[in-house]
Amino acid sequence: MRKFITLEGIEGVGKTSNLHYIQGLLELSGHSCVVTREPGGTLLGEALRELLLSHSDDSMSADAELLMMFAARAEHLNKVIRPALENNQTVLCDRFTEATYAYQGGGRQLDVDKISKLEVWVQEDLRPDLTLILDAPVEVGRARAGRRSEPDRIEKEHDAFFQRVRKAYINLAERYPHRICLINASVELDAVQLQIHKKLLEYNILIG
Amino acid sequence: MRKFITLEGIEGVGKTSNLHYIQGLLELSGHSCVVTREPGGTLLGEALRELLLSHSDDSMSADAELLMMFAARAEHLNKVIRPALENNQTVLCDRFTEATYAYQGGGRQLDVDKISKLEVWVQEDLRPDLTLILDAPVEVGRARAGRRSEPDRIEKEHDAFFQRVRKAYINLAERYPHRICLINASVELDAVQLQIHKKLLEYNILIG
Repeated sequence: MRKFITLEGIEGVGKTSNLHYIQGLLELSGHSCVVTREPGGTLLGEALRELLLSHSDDSMSADAELLMMFAARAEHLNKVIRPALENNQTVLCDRFTEATYAYQGGGRQLDVDKISKLEVWVQEDLRPDLTLILDAPVEVGRARAGRRSEPDRIEKEHDAFFQRVRKAYINLAERYPHRICLINASVELDAVQLQIHKKLLEYNILIG
Repeated sequence: MRKFITLEGIEGVGKTSNLHYIQGLLELSGHSCVVTREPGGTLLGEALRELLLSHSDDSMSADAELLMMFAARAEHLNKVIRPALENNQTVLCDRFTEATYAYQGGGRQLDVDKISKLEVWVQEDLRPDLTLILDAPVEVGRARAGRRSEPDRIEKEHDAFFQRVRKAYINLAERYPHRICLINASVELDAVQLQIHKKLLEYNILIG
């Protein structure tokens, strides 16, 4: 019953709260869970995450950014995700390749075909069984995220960037409806959780 | 008359001395030179080089290593190499993609087809005009390199690794004889330099 589940969405849509909620549901239903995140999830990945998010090199080339994302992903897959799945554990990951399509493809407007080639290069035929995208208008997410700590380099990008990210996420859900679902995250938390619970049942991820 | 020239070879074959020698010849012949190295050559590239060479994560997955190499390369191409060539400068680079074929492909025995896909992804049709490979038996290089500082993670790899690296370099020269040349580096320095000088003349890189 192992599953590979990823949670996506722009800043401030409630990923952290809902990650814990999903983990709780999975464990109640008997899944042994590995909860992880991207970029990061390994020692090397966290070091690359630091480089990616640091303020020091604002003009990093888009190609380099994309390759570093997939370097972290390759390490994460080889060290954490594939071993867990092979060990019959369920992997719950805070962001994955869909974030690359959304942020680098949509946000930075990088060639989507280039992303697709790296996806195949790194993942071969491995794709998440279910990707939940927490969707809310950019203003809602930005207002919530703004209440937290100092924004990092990527958070500082202007609203138009996040509009493109959101649109790319919506396009992914439209293109791959069998494995990618939009969750309306602009409602109250319990209403968001109800939608998530229903999706997990619908995809036969929860028992009963 | 701008050219893109790369210098390759295993540790201890005399890359540093010969890099300076080649730079001198190019400048005497009127080239405006940019001398650089891989992995590295940019702020981001040097940070990635640190991660790649550090002792802390001996078990870095081969895919991650390869993607980081090409991330550094993409940055280097976009920030240093392409702008210099567009500015009619000659680029002299201490190691480039041929080193990836030799070390990751030959040494680590990674799928060469995977390297080739990243080469095309990052470089499109850009290839060095001339690659000089300083070739010497592994024992010669190891003995010379051993006299220097504490070996790093990659230098510590066993001799069989370096035998595979050397063989991969030789194969590259056989496969692409129009742009990759072997230089016998097991002779005295002045005899090595004579071979290099002749190759630069033969490739119409030096005037007169």
